[in-house]
Amino acid sequence: MQVNVNWRQSVALVGTVLKYFAVTLAVPLFVALVYRDDILVFLVSIAATAALGLALERVDGDAELGLEEALLFVTLAWVGVSAVGTIPYLLAGVGTQSTVGLALDSPTALLHSLVNALFESTSGFTTTGATVLGEISFERHSHALLMYRQLTQWLGGMGIIVLMVAILPELAVNGAQLIDAEAPGPELQKLTPKISETARILWLVYAGFTVVCIGLLYSLHWLGLAPEMNLYNAVAHGFTTLPTGGFSPQAESIAAFTPAVQWLVIPFIVVAGTNFALFYFVLRGQYVEVFRNREFQGYIGAIVGIAVLLWGLLFTGAAPPLELGGVTLGVPENSLRQALFQTVTLLNSTGFATSDFAQWSEWAQVLLLGVMFIGGSAGSTGGGIKVIRWLVVLKAARRQLSTTVYPDVVEPVRLGGRVIDEDVVRSVFAFTFLYLFIFGVSAVGIALDASRVGLDLTTLEALSASIATIGNIGPGFGLLGPFGSYLAFPATTKLHMILLMWLGRLEVIPVLVLFTRSFWEW
Amino acid sequence: MQVNVNWRQSVALVGTVLKYFAVTLAVPLFVALVYRDDILVFLVSIAATAALGLALERVDGDAELGLEEALLFVTLAWVGVSAVGTIPYLLAGVGTQSTVGLALDSPTALLHSLVNALFESTSGFTTTGATVLGEISFERHSHALLMYRQLTQWLGGMGIIVLMVAILPELAVNGAQLIDAEAPGPELQKLTPKISETARILWLVYAGFTVVCIGLLYSLHWLGLAPEMNLYNAVAHGFTTLPTGGFSPQAESIAAFTPAVQWLVIPFIVVAGTNFALFYFVLRGQYVEVFRNREFQGYIGAIVGIAVLLWGLLFTGAAPPLELGGVTLGVPENSLRQALFQTVTLLNSTGFATSDFAQWSEWAQVLLLGVMFIGGSAGSTGGGIKVIRWLVVLKAARRQLSTTVYPDVVEPVRLGGRVIDEDVVRSVFAFTFLYLFIFGVSAVGIALDASRVGLDLTTLEALSASIATIGNIGPGFGLLGPFGSYLAFPATTKLHMILLMWLGRLEVIPVLVLFTRSFWEW
Ligand SMILES: [K+]
Ligand SMILES: [K+]
Repeated sequence: MQVNVNWRQSVALVGTVLKYFAVTLAVPLFVALVYRDDILVFLVSIAATAALGLALERVDGDAELGLEEALLFVTLAWVGVSAVGTIPYLLAGVGTQSTVGLALDSPTALLHSLVNALFESTSGFTTTGATVLGEISFERHSHALLMYRQLTQWLGGMGIIVLMVAILPELAVNGAQLIDAEAPGPELQKLTPKISETARILWLVYAGFTVVCIGLLYSLHWLGLAPEMNLYNAVAHGFTTLPTGGFSPQAESIAAFTPAVQWLVIPFIVVAGTNFALFYFVLRGQYVEVFRNREFQGYIGAIVGIAVLLWGLLFTGAAPPLELGGVTLGVPENSLRQALFQTVTLLNSTGFATSDFAQWSEWAQVLLLGVMFIGGSAGSTGGGIKVIRWLVVLKAARRQLSTTVYPDVVEPVRLGGRVIDEDVVRSVFAFTFLYLFIFGVSAVGIALDASRVGLDLTTLEALSASIATIGNIGPGFGLLGPFGSYLAFPATTKLHMILLMWLGRLEVIPVLVLFTRSFWEW
Repeated sequence: MQVNVNWRQSVALVGTVLKYFAVTLAVPLFVALVYRDDILVFLVSIAATAALGLALERVDGDAELGLEEALLFVTLAWVGVSAVGTIPYLLAGVGTQSTVGLALDSPTALLHSLVNALFESTSGFTTTGATVLGEISFERHSHALLMYRQLTQWLGGMGIIVLMVAILPELAVNGAQLIDAEAPGPELQKLTPKISETARILWLVYAGFTVVCIGLLYSLHWLGLAPEMNLYNAVAHGFTTLPTGGFSPQAESIAAFTPAVQWLVIPFIVVAGTNFALFYFVLRGQYVEVFRNREFQGYIGAIVGIAVLLWGLLFTGAAPPLELGGVTLGVPENSLRQALFQTVTLLNSTGFATSDFAQWSEWAQVLLLGVMFIGGSAGSTGGGIKVIRWLVVLKAARRQLSTTVYPDVVEPVRLGGRVIDEDVVRSVFAFTFLYLFIFGVSAVGIALDASRVGLDLTTLEALSASIATIGNIGPGFGLLGPFGSYLAFPATTKLHMILLMWLGRLEVIPVLVLFTRSFWEW
């Protein structure tokens, strides 16, 4: 076999990514200096990350980045950042009870600590939000480390590659392919002729909303409406709301805060799952683009429909037993808030929690499981199958009905007046199918592997573990519920889930391609 | 709206179907005469069915049957036969404790008895095998009625329409379309230039295997290897093995018989899920057609792979608790038999039971749930998504990976050297997606509706209820397990499931088409 992929070029670029990643670690270092804890951890992490990045940059190839090199680079960048991102967890936890700290007592302990750290790091960058931290508290972990954990989600949210395209001029040529491989949806919407400018706009909108979110959260504190929402918490939750991340330095997640905070977070979660290009159109006064956007209509329609259904059931008590999981029967505000929050947080893959829905009735949980398959919009930070794909496959399936009656009439699939190319229809079908297939096989695999070590999952737990990781959602049901953890899973299952998180974040195909022979040969 | 579908012609043909159906009722009448029970029931049923058939035949239209009329006819024929097929259940149960007997005590009782009878009848003809008979015993039901129940599955197995095409010369013109609408797979394999001859061959192979199965079952009895397998039981189980039906006049299903019977039934279940065209090739000595058939390879491969996995786990006790559900730990024959039987019976949608797998560990049940999505082969009597479709979608999904690396190379999807037409790929994707979508929405709907009446299903029960009905399988897990029943579901859920059984048997699209406006207008 002759390898025709110029992998050196891809590896060198990963070095550049790591170099910039080292710079962003200034944020947790600053927190460490403020709270006087883990300062050395972050100094060493910055040094190690920067050194590794600079070393890799020296592995040099040609200047031109072909399609194969672009695909390889994107996957390597995500794997590389996740791997190097374990350093702060490993160092900070040395000699403590931390489940993600480097343990050198035995080879088994070492293996578990490495797998746990990689799980937490991958869960962060992929904006999944599944955790293996045994105990989330400032007694166990420093303010700096927990802020670093929040930061990983913010960096992963709009896409590491999108950020690189925005700032590195040498990536401009293949920028569109790179961003497609990192994939915020089936097709990139070019806002400007220059792809680097589009990338810059997306990141600016993203950063802008983050600043507004942090500002408003802190305003609530300042107005006396949210005593717990100090500056640290405002920044921490701003960092994980816009990327549909869901990590929180509070064990209680958003349930730790007042209803005012919960209400404020809801619209920002909705924004995080909206196509960011739409905000650009709003800024330019092209409102009609927003209201004519079929995906936006579908996204909002799904949220409203499901939330209203759930509200009715929470309010009447059909879904939860009385006073369970934070729901108070017959209180309109409480049940509306819980219904809406759980709908948006699971639908677009955020995963924040305000209610222990594991205590709701089984069928309400089956409904929420269904919601987890929807996903955010194209061009948003939301994961999952995504609304646009559902619209395309539903339209294409409907077209099949017409074809059955009129076999000779060739009818294109249309969306909002636009004809969808047959290649796109085909690739959307292939993606959706592969995604559901990997989900199904993984659910069985997770159940099997857990049972091997005596952990007997319920069907709901097994299914939700699979969709919550490949869908980059985070919480599932039962053991891995909104206030639960993935710590109890065996290391093999955790590695399986790490792969699922990468597959989900990069939208399956760019990762799978690397495992085909035709990728490496000519 | 102007109706342009010549529905009169379709209705008249349904009359012809009912006329022939009345003739087949001679079988249970004969049983009634032998056992001197329910003779009047079947005399009246025959008279009523024949009268209805003759009356409908007089609703006449034009002679030509267009595509729309063909589609309408197929669905109407299945709905009609299922509806008229309730007559024996309703009449035989008058004044008894039967759950499917006509009850006139109150409007509610009447409604429930009608829904139950329609459920049992539909479950029979569609070869689903889900039951709402409260108690399956000869004390509660006559030998004739329970044999009638078996007969409905045999009639439905190879397809009522295929049978009609085989025997009615006037259906020859549109025979291929009719059979496609009844759909034993994505594409009908024409064995002979004349479609009526192909239909005749399929039915002859089907009838031949049924006779052989009955003969061998009774031989076991005659050899003293199966004391319970008398002639009645041999015929009854022959009637429901080849159509992948799964009904049994024994409450214990196949578990009521010796291991010898269980071993004998396994190959016949495998045959029932095989493309019947392959047996025609074997008869003509074209063995190479069989061994080169990719679907056959996939079908056998899936059975062997899953059965071996399950065997290992049953044998070591990883799956079931000791001595539960008919499995004895550490006995190779017992665990192999149970693993193989459960695999084939659920994989190709038969639904016979030899073990209460509801008592196996949760993950083993999740594995079996996965098996239920596979289905039989094209041109077999098996239901579900079917092996050929899985092969096409997997190949097409794999093609997508190549397309990602080489966007300019247009590569066709191949199966066993043959190029699959893009239209077929598209329709297979549309079917698979619609099927999974209806399955998912129905699982939530079933859970919701059951919870409305205080029946709280587990996730596994809800998911299995949906796949077991749309997949025409029959048993699921828990409440509706292999020795359970669908009786406890509310009438609305039963009607939902009746629709799912029709959708599954006719492979979704021909039924859904009738609900589109373009079908009825021009
Ligand atoms: K996410
Ligand atoms: K079946």
